[in-house]
Amino acid sequence: MPRAMHIVLQKYEALKQAFKADALSERTTDSIAETFLESRTYIQTFGMLPLTYDGTGKNYFSFQNEQTGKISRAVNRDLFLGFNDTTAEMFLENVKRRQITNQSAEEITKACYTIAICFCCSIDMLKDNDQKTPGTFFEYLMGHLIGVQLGVLPSKQLDVLNLDMRATLPTDFILNIGENRPKFHVPVKTSTRERVVQVWAHQRVLDGVYGTGRFLGLLSCLSETKVNHQTHVVTEICLPDQWRVYQLFIAQMKRVYYLDIPQKYDRLNNVFPRMYIKPFGEFFFEAATLSN
Amino acid sequence: MPRAMHIVLQKYEALKQAFKADALSERTTDSIAETFLESRTYIQTFGMLPLTYDGTGKNYFSFQNEQTGKISRAVNRDLFLGFNDTTAEMFLENVKRRQITNQSAEEITKACYTIAICFCCSIDMLKDNDQKTPGTFFEYLMGHLIGVQLGVLPSKQLDVLNLDMRATLPTDFILNIGENRPKFHVPVKTSTRERVVQVWAHQRVLDGVYGTGRFLGLLSCLSETKVNHQTHVVTEICLPDQWRVYQLFIAQMKRVYYLDIPQKYDRLNNVFPRMYIKPFGEFFFEAATLSN
Repeated sequence: MPRAMHIVLQKYEALKQAFKADALSERTTDSIAETFLESRTYIQTFGMLPLTYDGTGKNYFSFQNEQTGKISRAVNRDLFLGFNDTTAEMFLENVKRRQITNQSAEEITKACYTIAICFCCSIDMLKDNDQKTPGTFFEYLMGHLIGVQLGVLPSKQLDVLNLDMRATLPTDFILNIGENRPKFHVPVKTSTRERVVQVWAHQRVLDGVYGTGRFLGLLSCLSETKVNHQTHVVTEICLPDQWRVYQLFIAQMKRVYYLDIPQKYDRLNNVFPRMYIKPFGEFFFEAATLSN
Repeated sequence: MPRAMHIVLQKYEALKQAFKADALSERTTDSIAETFLESRTYIQTFGMLPLTYDGTGKNYFSFQNEQTGKISRAVNRDLFLGFNDTTAEMFLENVKRRQITNQSAEEITKACYTIAICFCCSIDMLKDNDQKTPGTFFEYLMGHLIGVQLGVLPSKQLDVLNLDMRATLPTDFILNIGENRPKFHVPVKTSTRERVVQVWAHQRVLDGVYGTGRFLGLLSCLSETKVNHQTHVVTEICLPDQWRVYQLFIAQMKRVYYLDIPQKYDRLNNVFPRMYIKPFGEFFFEAATLSN
């Protein structure tokens, strides 16, 4: 490994290898833990700049390089565990012991949020406009956790076999929990923005090729925050009316999990078509009954 | 207008105003003509670097700044009208006189290709990594031409009215040619890449909300070429098997028009599900009968 590579990126490269070798292994959990600890140590060296939330009831800050003024993405103060808090370390221990539900859904959500946001903010500070590395790390994190909970390896493509045509469809994570049970279709996104329609479109293809109900769609996201670098105002970019149209006319997603639920999507829990938008920690408590 | 703005960008800004004021006006045609002529004059100042096509039967070059080495996107030598050829000017005159079909489909395709590619290459040379300006220009060009041919203004959003819910769906161009006739749904893209699934997803929403067959989908594209800036090899990025899956399981697009048809998509004319992939010039000869 080149000497010049930052320790956070070194740990990330090791995680990439571990995930590819065996997405469910203890080595993968350890790699996530090491990447998290290094990124938390790194991000701690920066200042914390309070942001103005464009709404009420949420508090955000950015990490800031006080020399250059460069700031990270927004961090939700109420979900971010402090630098000395050990909830996230305990969570990763529980992952290794396959005892995730020893912690509450709220603790799990905060632990996952802190693990994800420390890495994403580190990349924001280390690189310029790199969305791919945070996105891939978040895929490994979620793929590992969901795979461990369901006890099956996540895969990323599906054969479409159909009379005389054959095609391979690249997908987000697919988890096959065995015969006579529905399978899971798990798109993982740090944020969705206008590209989100592809999530419902892929669900539609799965419904069409394999039969409706065969795959349960679990969209899994980090947050929808966007920081204005001039005004330091943080906004949640949401398209709730479009989600309702997609849910009615393209396909049905079974759940949408967020680590930091946007307020406008939280409200979709209360209108028709009913959509279930939940903190990610709740997944671990309902995973066994989602297919009922 | 700031003095520092390049003449090509000045003409583009004027086109933007003209299109917004009246997308079908003579002023819009004139603005397209002026933008085209200025961009052709500008791009003529660069050298032409032959590219290696990753396949057979097509020839491409890039414009090149011989001082800096910077190159433009790929230009199809067989579709690009020479700098002294007046086919494109005649085409724009025919657009104003509403006599587009005075030229052959092949001449129209070459004229539109040359108008589009001169502007896109100019922006490639004037700016760094600006995909938005070429994309918006191409939308104006196609929106104007398709609108003129069908005799109706293109619009960009639709109300979704549905019992007790109401939402506005942002769409690509919609052309409403009147009662008791199908309407047209026209997504316009300089290239599609992996985002293309949204085209079928939007068609699916239209089919669901308004009834299948109510909107005819006409995907309209420039090309799918990608140049490797190191090796100067040009490749066509195509996902034909995925298009077939979308066409079978999400919705049906009535036509796909290209100015520069990728070879892998051209072959979709001959396999099941049959998709009609045509040079854009043919649109003007079949527009009146598409809804039959």
